[in-house]
Amino acid sequence: MSITVAVSGASGYAGGEVLRLLTAHPDVTIGAITAHSNAGERLGALQPHLHSLADRVLQDTTAEALAGHDVVFLALPHGASGALAAQIAERSPDTLVIDAGADHRLESAEAWERFYGTDHAGTWPYGLPELPGQRERLAGARRIAVPGCYPTTALLALTPGFSADVLEPQDVVIVAASGTSGAGKSVKPHLLGSEVMGGMSPYGVGGGHRHTPEIEQGLSQAAGQPVTISFTPTLAPMARGILATATARYVPGTDPVAIRQAWQDAYAQEEFVHLLPEGQWPTTKAVLGSNHVVMQLAVDEHAGRVIVTAALDNLTKGTAGGAIQSMNIALGLSEQAGLTQQGTAP
Amino acid sequence: MSITVAVSGASGYAGGEVLRLLTAHPDVTIGAITAHSNAGERLGALQPHLHSLADRVLQDTTAEALAGHDVVFLALPHGASGALAAQIAERSPDTLVIDAGADHRLESAEAWERFYGTDHAGTWPYGLPELPGQRERLAGARRIAVPGCYPTTALLALTPGFSADVLEPQDVVIVAASGTSGAGKSVKPHLLGSEVMGGMSPYGVGGGHRHTPEIEQGLSQAAGQPVTISFTPTLAPMARGILATATARYVPGTDPVAIRQAWQDAYAQEEFVHLLPEGQWPTTKAVLGSNHVVMQLAVDEHAGRVIVTAALDNLTKGTAGGAIQSMNIALGLSEQAGLTQQGTAP
Amino acid sequence: MSITVAVSGASGYAGGEVLRLLTAHPDVTIGAITAHSNAGERLGALQPHLHSLADRVLQDTTAEALAGHDVVFLALPHGASGALAAQIAERSPDTLVIDAGADHRLESAEAWERFYGTDHAGTWPYGLPELPGQRERLAGARRIAVPGCYPTTALLALTPGFSADVLEPQDVVIVAASGTSGAGKSVKPHLLGSEVMGGMSPYGVGGGHRHTPEIEQGLSQAAGQPVTISFTPTLAPMARGILATATARYVPGTDPVAIRQAWQDAYAQEEFVHLLPEGQWPTTKAVLGSNHVVMQLAVDEHAGRVIVTAALDNLTKGTAGGAIQSMNIALGLSEQAGLTQQGTAP
Amino acid sequence: MSITVAVSGASGYAGGEVLRLLTAHPDVTIGAITAHSNAGERLGALQPHLHSLADRVLQDTTAEALAGHDVVFLALPHGASGALAAQIAERSPDTLVIDAGADHRLESAEAWERFYGTDHAGTWPYGLPELPGQRERLAGARRIAVPGCYPTTALLALTPGFSADVLEPQDVVIVAASGTSGAGKSVKPHLLGSEVMGGMSPYGVGGGHRHTPEIEQGLSQAAGQPVTISFTPTLAPMARGILATATARYVPGTDPVAIRQAWQDAYAQEEFVHLLPEGQWPTTKAVLGSNHVVMQLAVDEHAGRVIVTAALDNLTKGTAGGAIQSMNIALGLSEQAGLTQQGTAP
Repeated sequence: MSITVAVSGASGYAGGEVLRLLTAHPDVTIGAITAHSNAGERLGALQPHLHSLADRVLQDTTAEALAGHDVVFLALPHGASGALAAQIAERSPDTLVIDAGADHRLESAEAWERFYGTDHAGTWPYGLPELPGQRERLAGARRIAVPGCYPTTALLALTPGFSADVLEPQDVVIVAASGTSGAGKSVKPHLLGSEVMGGMSPYGVGGGHRHTPEIEQGLSQAAGQPVTISFTPTLAPMARGILATATARYVPGTDPVAIRQAWQDAYAQEEFVHLLPEGQWPTTKAVLGSNHVVMQLAVDEHAGRVIVTAALDNLTKGTAGGAIQSMNIALGLSEQAGLTQQGTAP
Repeated sequence: MSITVAVSGASGYAGGEVLRLLTAHPDVTIGAITAHSNAGERLGALQPHLHSLADRVLQDTTAEALAGHDVVFLALPHGASGALAAQIAERSPDTLVIDAGADHRLESAEAWERFYGTDHAGTWPYGLPELPGQRERLAGARRIAVPGCYPTTALLALTPGFSADVLEPQDVVIVAASGTSGAGKSVKPHLLGSEVMGGMSPYGVGGGHRHTPEIEQGLSQAAGQPVTISFTPTLAPMARGILATATARYVPGTDPVAIRQAWQDAYAQEEFVHLLPEGQWPTTKAVLGSNHVVMQLAVDEHAGRVIVTAALDNLTKGTAGGAIQSMNIALGLSEQAGLTQQGTAP
Repeated sequence: MSITVAVSGASGYAGGEVLRLLTAHPDVTIGAITAHSNAGERLGALQPHLHSLADRVLQDTTAEALAGHDVVFLALPHGASGALAAQIAERSPDTLVIDAGADHRLESAEAWERFYGTDHAGTWPYGLPELPGQRERLAGARRIAVPGCYPTTALLALTPGFSADVLEPQDVVIVAASGTSGAGKSVKPHLLGSEVMGGMSPYGVGGGHRHTPEIEQGLSQAAGQPVTISFTPTLAPMARGILATATARYVPGTDPVAIRQAWQDAYAQEEFVHLLPEGQWPTTKAVLGSNHVVMQLAVDEHAGRVIVTAALDNLTKGTAGGAIQSMNIALGLSEQAGLTQQGTAP
Repeated sequence: MSITVAVSGASGYAGGEVLRLLTAHPDVTIGAITAHSNAGERLGALQPHLHSLADRVLQDTTAEALAGHDVVFLALPHGASGALAAQIAERSPDTLVIDAGADHRLESAEAWERFYGTDHAGTWPYGLPELPGQRERLAGARRIAVPGCYPTTALLALTPGFSADVLEPQDVVIVAASGTSGAGKSVKPHLLGSEVMGGMSPYGVGGGHRHTPEIEQGLSQAAGQPVTISFTPTLAPMARGILATATARYVPGTDPVAIRQAWQDAYAQEEFVHLLPEGQWPTTKAVLGSNHVVMQLAVDEHAGRVIVTAALDNLTKGTAGGAIQSMNIALGLSEQAGLTQQGTAP
């Protein structure tokens, strides 16, 4: 018996990646495919890589089109998913709604309002299964908030250290480089190929990036106390991938072997998150198109800090892959269904 | 019942892509993985994107290691596959041997000797199923010569026109841009990232490229008369992909609609080769990691020529994907097993 | 005594490159800098690489702002330069007006109307000094039409062969790859970095590209008879550079040495156009930011064709550098003033 | 009267960039051009972008070839420059020797031995003129140690804050992305274009990078007390450029306006180092090929940290441009001679 899935925002990068992964999912039938300004167009004209769906015509994004499916993926502008989810629930209360947008990620209404400037829509179960206790919260869920791509990277990089109480909560610094697809498909001059090829630049520096409160929320939960971060995102000349360098002071006197062991233990049983063998560094090339996260850790005794570098594909594990992994857990399917550990390289 | 497959040359790009695709093939068990200078190393250190095989240790490339499997993929230097195939046949006569190298592609011993400078090893069935009558030759085969990546592109681009007798055999011009993985993993100064990023350059211009006789062989078979080409390969600043522009005079007076129809008919039933809707142009991004070929055709009445532009992934349909597709046919499996129509984009 | 120069279209790529080169020109003072929709903005916000001009504020593009300078560069949409040049002439009849747009390149009003759809504005001296007799036409000129970037490449690649009567006028094929800056700074989805990095695609295939009549015009003048070309432009994943592969049948029986000699002779005295030593192939990296064109030639006796591959920087020699070189000639300055033979590599 | 300059290591990226800049230097004549394994080859075959020097033949790197010039640039493997400089001094004591290698950068013999494993060769004046008091030390110098490219970036980014006593000396974190030319022209598998295009990866993480003691040396001098850093370099998919994110705690209670003012004051008179207007972020594209450094600063009151992002061209200001700027000062030439503020973009 196949699960029916509808995908909104199908003309964008997140929606396209959800569709790409769904075409390889053994338990799924793709139902409605919707968009807003591109409604009425052939998918093949907008997402030419999705060949098997090329002749599908995009419907308008309405509750009517989306309701009635077992699962609905939402990839909408901030502030739009709450109302639409409510309308879908009226028509088909059992539908699993997975929000790839930010609306339902933050627990603090105040943080939401400060960073997004609208009313808080509420908090849904957070779709990052590798966080402690998170699989239990996702099992059977009918609402899932997909984490941001930077938070996925940063939380997987640092949570083991905070959970094991080996990291200090101040002076945490995260610098991350993202491929340009992280900025979406909107046509802005600084995202032109001529501008991004051959260059790197930062943006949203100094606490202003909307992913800052989301990362602090997750790290504080792991630490059991407030964690403060300095987060600097940069744009790299590549289409996909995030490489994060996350560094924090370790509790003075902690044995470096014990520090490494915290990460080893946290991910020993995970299919999609791996600490690499010592001496091997992560590269975003190794995880392109896969649901995989690779990381390496160094204990810098000179600086008294732990440095974790972590790589993932912002569109796969950072968005659509993480969403499907969470869907699989919510519906009781195999967690790996439709996902791969293999990257497409070189 | 699973088919056992051994892969030689596993530290290179072709061997790595064969392994990547095999991990997703439902009917296959991966047996021996071999290399030459890298024997004894962990695959994870050499091909970090192949996570599920990371702990496999490379064996030395010997008949002993490779024999006994149902299928053996060879990715060896020119001149090496004939002898090794014979040794494998002694030990396991029923093994399907698939040669990703050039040794068994050419029918003309003279052309082989002129372009490769060694004795001709013989001719094996040519692994390009979409050529007329080729599936019949591959069914049940125990030896397959995988086409070169440029010949795959060029032959798929022009064969329909020669088969339909609408193209003239002289002044055929093919100019193709390839990603750097087509040049392999050997460390040569001109292949350094610093040299290739931001630049394009031609190589092997003027008839000297070894793929020229292979392309002429295929086109001449389609035309039923000798076809002469001018072929210029160029290196583009991307890791994967080939975009070929192939142009030939059409027979004066031919109806442009009939010309387009020749391509339409040739590929109407194909899963992996498609003429795009008019107005849409191929891009290599759309086929990255897929076994797909997309092409578009223009009839230039001013110049009296047909121009076909075709895009594929040189490592997938251009090498490893085409090889697995041929394997599937030879063994009577579903032709699409382990292969995808979807590219990984953006 | 310094020459005053005004630059319109200063927020775009062509205008920006004109300004970059003018800052290094020993005989020039930069006067008005104008734009249309960006009038009133700091140049530093739009062209951050032009540091020494960062605090200049863009004026509106009007005859009033531009007149009164010794030289005016126009980089305007098609159809706009004729009227503006007339208005400038009313106010300052001696001003040298250099049009980087297409309006005054074509001699055939019919060709103009077919490809551009508007009334023909007339023909100005063509700013490609290396064409036979062209320096004489540019000396003292007060109007110059800057060639298109593809025509500059194609004409330099093939003119020597047509002038020397060694090439045949039919079945000329030109396939060229351009960096994305050739498409300008307009924000279109297919020019996003996420779309262009890692991919190649053709456009304007089959005779439809507006540079086709311009190339045919120049080649026909060199040949003394009509030359017909098949021209296919492609977009490459790099910001700058054009690599053209231009191929034509040679007159049967011509000595290959004599063919090469035609190019050797044509460019022996040129500062900015060079036939490379045999065995060395052009790369666009070698000419980045320079006014240099490098080319190599092969005589393919098997196919009966000459293949010329030529590389230049589309913004420098292909637009702004060629414009300044022509300005230097028109004003009697050193032809090399403000220009360099050195590329910026790697 | 022209200054004669010899350049060793001319086949590499640093030597090539020295030559590129020298061809535009008004006061310089290029004398001997030397290399080691490439001695006897045409420069045009190795550095095809240096057209005006294409026919120069590389001499062997010996004191005999280099002595007798006014200036000698050394770009040699670690440990080689001390002995060669002594031999040059015997033959021509007044020659200015500029070492682009690391041998004479560190003041601490112990740090040298720990990070480089050989005997310390001594300390030469440090070629970073924008550091406080540094121009005085360079004026009239006959030995100059060119800083590493990462140290140039990091020191320019953070020195104003330490000099002004607004930064705290612990928990300084620097994460930097470099283009691949920073790794030199040596052919290593991980530097192949196929490996670097489309990916980012860290290296030398955890205190092991040799630039760490050099950065700490400079920051400690500015602070007047020991500064400890955590430094993580990463490799980005571009040929040139460094983008550094450097962050440190500010002294609690410091006025954010005063913090910004420290940087403003430090660079207000500099030609080649600029704090951008608020709201504009640095990009490496803007400084490609120029001697320019652009930076932006944010005071993150939430995290209590200052974040400085700085961009330069690793081969120009980061190596060859900084070297020529220092040469100009040492010889009493205009500091800007041969250098440009304009980057080559897009």
